[in-house]
Amino acid sequence: MAQNIYDRPEFFVGYSSLVRSRQGLSGAPEWPVLRAMLPSVRGRRVVDLGCGFGWFCRWAHEQGATSILGLDVSEKMLERAVATSDVAIEYRRADLEELELPPAAFDIAYSSLALHYIQDVSRLFATVHQALVPGGAFIFSTEHPVLMAPSNPGWSIDAEGKKTWPVDRYFIEGRRTSDWLAKGVVKYHRTIGTTLNALIAAGFTLTHVEEFCPTAEQIAARPELAEELERPMFLLVSARR
Amino acid sequence: MAQNIYDRPEFFVGYSSLVRSRQGLSGAPEWPVLRAMLPSVRGRRVVDLGCGFGWFCRWAHEQGATSILGLDVSEKMLERAVATSDVAIEYRRADLEELELPPAAFDIAYSSLALHYIQDVSRLFATVHQALVPGGAFIFSTEHPVLMAPSNPGWSIDAEGKKTWPVDRYFIEGRRTSDWLAKGVVKYHRTIGTTLNALIAAGFTLTHVEEFCPTAEQIAARPELAEELERPMFLLVSARR
Repeated sequence: MAQNIYDRPEFFVGYSSLVRSRQGLSGAPEWPVLRAMLPSVRGRRVVDLGCGFGWFCRWAHEQGATSILGLDVSEKMLERAVATSDVAIEYRRADLEELELPPAAFDIAYSSLALHYIQDVSRLFATVHQALVPGGAFIFSTEHPVLMAPSNPGWSIDAEGKKTWPVDRYFIEGRRTSDWLAKGVVKYHRTIGTTLNALIAAGFTLTHVEEFCPTAEQIAARPELAEELERPMFLLVSARR
Repeated sequence: MAQNIYDRPEFFVGYSSLVRSRQGLSGAPEWPVLRAMLPSVRGRRVVDLGCGFGWFCRWAHEQGATSILGLDVSEKMLERAVATSDVAIEYRRADLEELELPPAAFDIAYSSLALHYIQDVSRLFATVHQALVPGGAFIFSTEHPVLMAPSNPGWSIDAEGKKTWPVDRYFIEGRRTSDWLAKGVVKYHRTIGTTLNALIAAGFTLTHVEEFCPTAEQIAARPELAEELERPMFLLVSARR
């Protein structure tokens, strides 16, 4: 079973205070890119893998999705999602590591920053593939392996103030433990090749691969995003069954 | 036109002395991975983009390819390739930046470590796509953007001897000038997303994406390869028209 870090009190408090948690999709700088990769959700059946507070599910409802299933392992996040919910959205507790989904039940599968908590993405990709109708779309974001790989992830700043992101252990895949909002957060590092080949092996056709990079407008509005030009932070992928 | 660095005397002498130049395919640690990504060349028409000394062309001939076209911008490399050639192999001087190829003339297109010298890969990918028969395969290696991106590419070694590869300028695509074998070698940095999306936009279906990592046997035989576990050096891609 995946670690359920979101239900740890200190993590939940920290996560709840992030811009992306308070402002929802508009607080996530990668959202415009992910949105552009999404087909229209109007009239479609949508599943959100790792729905958190339900921001995407509510957006999909506003956009006219006919049925929406939000899945998350965190009880606390689902509680808050349900409290702001609509009857057209179903929230269900689920461990993505052991997920079962009915065949050909969805047109669009979406997942935002959840897959790096999952050890066995091959199993999950196969589950998502059979749960989509032929032609259905799978769009997800995950932490970029360049962000995840290092034994000591963090910026290095030289005597002239030049920032670099020192990479090591890129090909040592697997468990990474970091202290982010709480001690001992467990994530799983995979190379880009491993993630993309797992999608291809599950039967998906890759339609777009993006490494999130902030726009000039985003950097002007949030200058702290400028460092995201130096190294890739998120991997964003769309694929078609 | 692409820089023709290989014909500069100091570069040519340096390049000619590399293990991969002296030993050919067996001296290139990524070759077993590329070979595994190649369909059988027996009875197929093959084009090699950036054929260098012709090692791959000769291999393809030995494996039973029916016609083989080797293209390179370097006169000196082509001279040596021709000197060791067979009638079944045609070598031709060509700038990949301005390449024209006849439609549906090849079953397999191959390129080893040449694309990072090319500024406009979208144009080249479109040229290769129309030159392949439907179902034809395009297999290539190129320098990995994590290797190419940094303003000062090189290992950093801390007080405890720990090696890291400091990354910056990942999203600043374009020209990179480095001193490798000769001063002022010009290459073009592109993110993984840019390369893969250019293939998809040209009409290709991605079939495999690999980031070269040496095997334990390779490291035992050539201990200097151990550092290649720390950061990705080459990107290897196969795609189908």
